[in-house]
Amino acid sequence: MEVQLKETERIDDLQLKGLKLIQDKTGFCFGIDAVLLANFAKVKKGAKVVDLGTGTGIIPTLIAGKSQASKIIGVEIQEEVYEMATRSVKLNNLQDRVEIINADIKTIDKTLEVHGYHVVTSNPPYMHMDGIKNPNDKKMISRHEVKCNLEDVIRAASRLTMPKGKFFMIHRPTRLVDIIELGRKYRLEPKQVQFIHPRANKAPNLILVEFAKDGRPELKILDPLYVYGEDGNYTDEIKAIYANEDIGEE
Amino acid sequence: MEVQLKETERIDDLQLKGLKLIQDKTGFCFGIDAVLLANFAKVKKGAKVVDLGTGTGIIPTLIAGKSQASKIIGVEIQEEVYEMATRSVKLNNLQDRVEIINADIKTIDKTLEVHGYHVVTSNPPYMHMDGIKNPNDKKMISRHEVKCNLEDVIRAASRLTMPKGKFFMIHRPTRLVDIIELGRKYRLEPKQVQFIHPRANKAPNLILVEFAKDGRPELKILDPLYVYGEDGNYTDEIKAIYANEDIGEE
Repeated sequence: MEVQLKETERIDDLQLKGLKLIQDKTGFCFGIDAVLLANFAKVKKGAKVVDLGTGTGIIPTLIAGKSQASKIIGVEIQEEVYEMATRSVKLNNLQDRVEIINADIKTIDKTLEVHGYHVVTSNPPYMHMDGIKNPNDKKMISRHEVKCNLEDVIRAASRLTMPKGKFFMIHRPTRLVDIIELGRKYRLEPKQVQFIHPRANKAPNLILVEFAKDGRPELKILDPLYVYGEDGNYTDEIKAIYANEDIGEE
Repeated sequence: MEVQLKETERIDDLQLKGLKLIQDKTGFCFGIDAVLLANFAKVKKGAKVVDLGTGTGIIPTLIAGKSQASKIIGVEIQEEVYEMATRSVKLNNLQDRVEIINADIKTIDKTLEVHGYHVVTSNPPYMHMDGIKNPNDKKMISRHEVKCNLEDVIRAASRLTMPKGKFFMIHRPTRLVDIIELGRKYRLEPKQVQFIHPRANKAPNLILVEFAKDGRPELKILDPLYVYGEDGNYTDEIKAIYANEDIGEE
């Protein structure tokens, strides 16, 4: 399907089953975090999925390509960004499985079915609001906790996941204490974490977390993932993830 | 000073300033965890230190050798083990700086000064009580949460640390969620963690945690520590720690 592009927009090829994504060159473009999270999320056949703070719609699009989820809803608060993501859905002819909605995750249970989803995902803004000068800037809203903070994200995820449902999130390791404490507070037990290190011997700068609704306490730390090898190139693990090998499905 | 040995005991040389340690060959002998923890703990000149669940007294002995702490108290609940550790203190002529006391950490604030210590350390039992068959066995008490659980340890550490004091602990990453939640509960904010991996590319099996009493929320994840290199030998970092190079002092 043909869609209209605005002057600052471009279409990127996701190298996965012909899927494409519209991005605004002047806005926030997706990075390795979204790719890692879409790969990390286990989505079973027929699953209903919600992605909180979906931005360009990268995560619903990748999950649609990689899994046999029956329905994937992306929630985006910024109207312009929501509208762009909706055009990406049309561009990919995914309207029957993917829907982007323009809503605030703080009141998401008025819009979406409470405890109605098998899987929730989120790649939320990482940074605190401290010292933000331009809170209306689109990039700022994607990067900083302007419109929602970590607690809002975890609370929303808890409201939406069904019993035994899963919540998959990527964030910064500096927030690990908050992530764990808030998870327990909202009955999302951290079950697996994977640290992403820029290279071996370096501290991790990203963390993937799998929470289980009302899960039994016991955390598994997965083998670490190193992004770059000693030669400065992506490691084989990262290349495999970008090549969309069949990881992350069940 | 000469001390008497029981039939099942032996004296080990700690390769640090001539320090030695009495261990019971049939009991729990110290491992790499104690060495890593003693290295990780930052102990300033003149500091007052408590080690909770001290066992053979390995941690107070190593800290006495590595730091200029003015007083290091090891707390041990098992009378026989306490008595053996006390002989190690005499063997090393450390009676003026190191004291082993026979007490229960659950009621430690009746014995030791509340909020009187700069540093608390602990290498507590890692394993849950589930399925324990012989709760009187000395090794069992050292390894399993027979006499105290993680919450007892963290509560005691919180009672003993002075404002801005530090608590250093080594444990299993599987307990990370409990460690973090209990830390916050008892006002011990996790400030730094270091994961210990058996080798690069393998998930960590030990975690070192530095808590600060009433610390500001923000966690630093340190560069990982790998125990074995690709050649199957200790890595240079581990060799340096065993060689007691001047790390862990301030």
